[in-house]
Amino acid sequence: MTTVRYIEEKDANDRVKEIYRDISESRGGAEINNIWKVLANDPDLLESTWKRLKKVMAPGSLDPLVKEMIYVAVSVINGCEYCVHSHSAAAKKKGMTDAMRSELFSVIAMASQTNALAEAYQVEVDDKFKV
Amino acid sequence: MTTVRYIEEKDANDRVKEIYRDISESRGGAEINNIWKVLANDPDLLESTWKRLKKVMAPGSLDPLVKEMIYVAVSVINGCEYCVHSHSAAAKKKGMTDAMRSELFSVIAMASQTNALAEAYQVEVDDKFKV
Amino acid sequence: MTTVRYIEEKDANDRVKEIYRDISESRGGAEINNIWKVLANDPDLLESTWKRLKKVMAPGSLDPLVKEMIYVAVSVINGCEYCVHSHSAAAKKKGMTDAMRSELFSVIAMASQTNALAEAYQVEVDDKFKV
Amino acid sequence: MTTVRYIEEKDANDRVKEIYRDISESRGGAEINNIWKVLANDPDLLESTWKRLKKVMAPGSLDPLVKEMIYVAVSVINGCEYCVHSHSAAAKKKGMTDAMRSELFSVIAMASQTNALAEAYQVEVDDKFKV
Amino acid sequence: MTTVRYIEEKDANDRVKEIYRDISESRGGAEINNIWKVLANDPDLLESTWKRLKKVMAPGSLDPLVKEMIYVAVSVINGCEYCVHSHSAAAKKKGMTDAMRSELFSVIAMASQTNALAEAYQVEVDDKFKV
Amino acid sequence: MTTVRYIEEKDANDRVKEIYRDISESRGGAEINNIWKVLANDPDLLESTWKRLKKVMAPGSLDPLVKEMIYVAVSVINGCEYCVHSHSAAAKKKGMTDAMRSELFSVIAMASQTNALAEAYQVEVDDKFKV
Repeated sequence: MTTVRYIEEKDANDRVKEIYRDISESRGGAEINNIWKVLANDPDLLESTWKRLKKVMAPGSLDPLVKEMIYVAVSVINGCEYCVHSHSAAAKKKGMTDAMRSELFSVIAMASQTNALAEAYQVEVDDKFKV
Repeated sequence: MTTVRYIEEKDANDRVKEIYRDISESRGGAEINNIWKVLANDPDLLESTWKRLKKVMAPGSLDPLVKEMIYVAVSVINGCEYCVHSHSAAAKKKGMTDAMRSELFSVIAMASQTNALAEAYQVEVDDKFKV
Repeated sequence: MTTVRYIEEKDANDRVKEIYRDISESRGGAEINNIWKVLANDPDLLESTWKRLKKVMAPGSLDPLVKEMIYVAVSVINGCEYCVHSHSAAAKKKGMTDAMRSELFSVIAMASQTNALAEAYQVEVDDKFKV
Repeated sequence: MTTVRYIEEKDANDRVKEIYRDISESRGGAEINNIWKVLANDPDLLESTWKRLKKVMAPGSLDPLVKEMIYVAVSVINGCEYCVHSHSAAAKKKGMTDAMRSELFSVIAMASQTNALAEAYQVEVDDKFKV
Repeated sequence: MTTVRYIEEKDANDRVKEIYRDISESRGGAEINNIWKVLANDPDLLESTWKRLKKVMAPGSLDPLVKEMIYVAVSVINGCEYCVHSHSAAAKKKGMTDAMRSELFSVIAMASQTNALAEAYQVEVDDKFKV
Repeated sequence: MTTVRYIEEKDANDRVKEIYRDISESRGGAEINNIWKVLANDPDLLESTWKRLKKVMAPGSLDPLVKEMIYVAVSVINGCEYCVHSHSAAAKKKGMTDAMRSELFSVIAMASQTNALAEAYQVEVDDKFKV
């Protein structure tokens, strides 16, 4: 798409550098992924995205691995190759075993199938679900 | 869509009746949802869908509530109103609190946002994710 | 969405009236569906859409019923409730039996499932398919 | 996505080997496609997917070529590159000519266009379609 | 979906009330839309969504009406009925004429059509676009 | 997908050649993009697509750059890599600055996020939007 730069740390301005540092520290010193290097072209976007992501993915009522697997599920259905790759790797790092991945993907496939059937047959929502 | 019948238990043939019984028993005696009454128009489809669903959603490496929340996430992105309703209800029954739902939906929104950004900027997959 | 008018035949200008007549005649005198009444707000859009549709859906290497079922499949996946309804009705009129509909929907469900799996596992395209 | 193995026949366990044999025989001795080699990491998934696919795609009220083209249509809209490739190849093997492919793709494009218009204008479903 | 409350201003806590006030003032005193009343169940989500939205939709290199129409286009393709309604209304308020809406929807339909064709034929990206 | 030919100008028949000439002239002598070379396999499709595109993207109530950015937005959400590339390049040619692209992509991300939230919470359309 012509000219989208990947901004490396050494080329980043101070604001971006600080966000990069926070990303890396939050992830045990990991190097910065491509998506952040691209978002850095728009420091406001980089900052708002990272800040919200950090909060949303933190431990809460759901544990971080569960959140990561939900992230993968959304990315699969949205057809985002980049995100499937990066969040599958993140899930693995947070403890997703091969057996868990199998189950995750089986649920995704199952849901896709019944989603399509409900849409095809235009099934009406049961009254009990509307209460 | 003209003429899709919702097959009630009393009108079902024996094969369908048996599957209805299995669905109801597996769910603590719950009444049959509309989607099954519609799939019953095609008993093969009803049976294969239910059998696979029962297996996929059973406790395994992931617990049933986590699976149910993944199901909801997929249904939201696929835009399946019926499935969002029915699986949100199922998740609630399995213990999803309001706080958990908030986090589930926040992750879905977060992922949708970064999926769109990765697609818009056509971010290349990092080499480390391809190994 | 505020103010989208459904333009009835009696309120239509001559250009729109003529297109309505062609639509109705091509369909054995059927009354005009809502989508055409809406597109009539933009006569250029109405005309280009109808003319192309008429040509695309005409008998050719594929027969009209097959085309109508493909139309339904696309509409299901795009989640277009209006189009699922109208094209399922059209398919039925052109001879789609309940058994054919069952098979159509089973294929749609099957494909949705393997589409999701190929995306989840990021399966690489076989070299033989690229030749 | 790190570590998804493509399981070759020689490395497969007996259960997987038998399914591979059935796949190959059903397709006139064809070699196993990548998707099956990936699903083989989860033999239950492999078996349930293949068994259902074999049944769904068999001759019935719709002929196998029609089913294959519907499969392609769904895969296009779901944006599944792998499936577009593999099922276009399958359709060709089953007799899809270039002229048929042109018509298939023209219907897909036409439907995508009117799906978007119905959604944009939020066209209401005609009463006659709801009966 | 069972129990999602719409939180009215009088029932809101102080933090939510303040955000409601900001939303209303930014929109010339308009009453609060349903989506905000729902997001208010999760005040963090409400605040982060509103703050970012306010910034993103403000005048900048693109004018607010153009942004609103882009918002509509995304909502149409994502099949979000709520958002198509609310952002079409917003666009109208910001000056979108019927003629502009016609053109907006024609572009959306056109793009959907060529998107489908590029996906169906698996057209390769021209080298010149990759530079 | 086996055998989709890219038809170069020198190999094109007269009808296709004329359309190529019109495309090139309308774009200041630009060379023909891959998508047209593929659509040329079906001259009717090539002609109807190009003629409608030319009309839809012409200056009107919306200026061509705005239309091009709407085209990009649709392509991002439909996940059409080819179209994101080609229409981002076209938008740039028509004057889209980096700042404008940042805003375009921020709106796309914002909309994707609230679309998902409206769908997840199944927010009901406000009565005022239905008038």
